[in-house]
Amino acid sequence: MNPDGKVALVAVIGRGLVDADTPVLTADDLGATRGDGCFDATRVTTDPDGHSRAENLDAHLDRLAASAAALDIDPPDHAQWRALIAEMLTAWELPGEAVLKLVLTRGREWAPGTPTAYATLVHRSVPLTGGDPFAARRGISAVTLSRGHPHDAYADAPWLLGGVKTLSYVVNAAAQREARRRGADDVLFVTTDGYCLDGPTSGLVVIHGNRLRTTPTGATGLLGSVTVDRIVTAARADGMDARHALIPVADLTDADGIWLVSSGRGPAPVRVLDGQALAVDEALVSRVAGYAGFAVPDSTADPAGH
Amino acid sequence: MNPDGKVALVAVIGRGLVDADTPVLTADDLGATRGDGCFDATRVTTDPDGHSRAENLDAHLDRLAASAAALDIDPPDHAQWRALIAEMLTAWELPGEAVLKLVLTRGREWAPGTPTAYATLVHRSVPLTGGDPFAARRGISAVTLSRGHPHDAYADAPWLLGGVKTLSYVVNAAAQREARRRGADDVLFVTTDGYCLDGPTSGLVVIHGNRLRTTPTGATGLLGSVTVDRIVTAARADGMDARHALIPVADLTDADGIWLVSSGRGPAPVRVLDGQALAVDEALVSRVAGYAGFAVPDSTADPAGH
Repeated sequence: MNPDGKVALVAVIGRGLVDADTPVLTADDLGATRGDGCFDATRVTTDPDGHSRAENLDAHLDRLAASAAALDIDPPDHAQWRALIAEMLTAWELPGEAVLKLVLTRGREWAPGTPTAYATLVHRSVPLTGGDPFAARRGISAVTLSRGHPHDAYADAPWLLGGVKTLSYVVNAAAQREARRRGADDVLFVTTDGYCLDGPTSGLVVIHGNRLRTTPTGATGLLGSVTVDRIVTAARADGMDARHALIPVADLTDADGIWLVSSGRGPAPVRVLDGQALAVDEALVSRVAGYAGFAVPDSTADPAGH
Repeated sequence: MNPDGKVALVAVIGRGLVDADTPVLTADDLGATRGDGCFDATRVTTDPDGHSRAENLDAHLDRLAASAAALDIDPPDHAQWRALIAEMLTAWELPGEAVLKLVLTRGREWAPGTPTAYATLVHRSVPLTGGDPFAARRGISAVTLSRGHPHDAYADAPWLLGGVKTLSYVVNAAAQREARRRGADDVLFVTTDGYCLDGPTSGLVVIHGNRLRTTPTGATGLLGSVTVDRIVTAARADGMDARHALIPVADLTDADGIWLVSSGRGPAPVRVLDGQALAVDEALVSRVAGYAGFAVPDSTADPAGH
C-alpha cells in the first residue's frame, strides 16, 4: 500500500512529493486561468513486489518538450523530470497499472517567468467513473463528432497549436460528455470535409486487410501519438502496409477494425460506431494490443464493454 | 493602499479573502489539467475616497452562468458571487481602474462534484507587460490570423462550445504572441472563408458611415460581448444603423473605424492593420468610447499607441 493508503501521488518540481489534497497552483497560474500550458501522460506498471516502471518515458518527455517549445515555455530538463518521477515511483507500491501525468504551465501571471511543473500518479483501479477500468481494451462504442475545421486548417497557422498537447482540453471534455449523452463511450472527431481525425484523448488506427492507417499530423492539427507510432512500427515489422494517411469517414463502414489508442488505456477496439455494430476480427484485436505492448483482458462481459 | 500594499486580491467561494501568493488549486483541479471551466471579467473603478464599483456586473454574472450551463457545471448563485465581490471591494482601496475576474472550474478530478470558484482583482496600473495601461484606448495595431474554421463551423455542434467563455484560452494566448512577433499589439481572428470573427480577448466593431456592424454569435462560435452590446444599444439610440452581421475581411480596408472591444480595456481603435495604416476619424473614436462608457485618455504619444 502507498503512504497514508492513498491511490494518488503528487510531486512538484522544486518541492518533491506533496500531499495530494494540498493546493499547488495559485489563483493567477496561467495553466488554470488560460489553459496555457501542456502535459503528457504514460502508463506505469507495478510488479507484485512494488517495483514500478514508466513506459516509453523518453518518447513522452520528448513530446512534452516539443509541446513546451511550441508554447515558448522553458521546461524543466529531462533530468529534473526523471528525478521527480524516480521519487514518485520509489514511494509508489501499489501493484497493477497507474497513469503518470506530467503538467507544465506558463506559471504565474503576477510573477512571470517561472513555469509551474508537477506530476501526478493515479492507480487505474480508482473507480472515478465506475466500472471495470480495463473494459475498454475489449471494446468500446463511439460516435463521430465534427471538430469544426477542414482537414488542412492547421497548415501555416502555428498559433492554432496543432500537434501540441495543451492544457486547453475543454472541447475534448465536452465531446466526451456528448458521447455519453448519446449512450456511447468515446468520440471520433471528423473534419468538416469528411475525414477522420482522432479521439479527444486518443489516436486512431484503422485496418483494412493488410493495410493499417492512422491520420497524419501536420495540417490536420493532430497530436502525434506515442502508442500509435509504436503500433505502426510493430505492424510494419509484422509485414503490414502501415502508414500515416488521411482516412475518409466513408472508409470506416467496411473496416476490419478501428481502434482509439492512448498510452494509459491502450488500443480500444471500436465495436459500435454511431449506433451501428462493426464486425471486429478477434485475432486482429489481440494482434493490435500486442503491437502496443498491451494485453486484452479476459471477460464474459458483453463485447461493447458495457 | 490595499492590505499589505498588494495590488492584487484573491477570494475563494467558501473561504473568502486569501493571500494572493497562497495556492488555491490542487494538482487534479480540472481547470488546470483540462482548462475545463469558464470565467468572466469586468472593470472595477475606485474613487479617490476608496469607494469601488464593478461595472455591468449583472450582465457578467449572467454570462458566467450561461457559460457554466453550457459546460454542465453547477455554479455558485449570483448572491454567493455578490457576497464574495462585496468582501473584495470593501478591502480594495486603490483609486483608479482594476479588473475583476471570476473563475469557475469543474473542480477536482479525484474528488468530483464540487466546482472550484474564485475571484481575482488586479489594478490596471500593474506594469505586467510594461507601458501605459491605457494606451490601447487611443489606438492599437493588429494583425489578421486564421481561426482555422469556416464562418458556420459551430452550427449544430454544441460540444465545440461556441459562445462559451472557457478557461481553454491557449490558442488566444498563442495568437497574441504571434501578433507581438509581427510587431503588432493584438489580433483579429478571421474564418477560412473570409469573414471577420473577433479578437483573442475582445469583440469587434466596424463602422462605415452610419452603419455599425459586429460579428454575430451562434454558428460563428463567437462569445457575446457585454461591452459590444452596450455599444450597439447606445449607437442605435444615437441614430446609427447598428447590427450583428457577418463582416467580410475585404470590407475592412475602407472602414471609417475598427475597434477591438473588451470590458477592462474598453474600445481600442485599430490604427494599423496587417502593417497598413487605417484612416481613423478622431471624433468617431471619442463617440464609440462614450457609447461603451469609457473615455479616450489624452496623450502626446504616437497614434498607434507605441
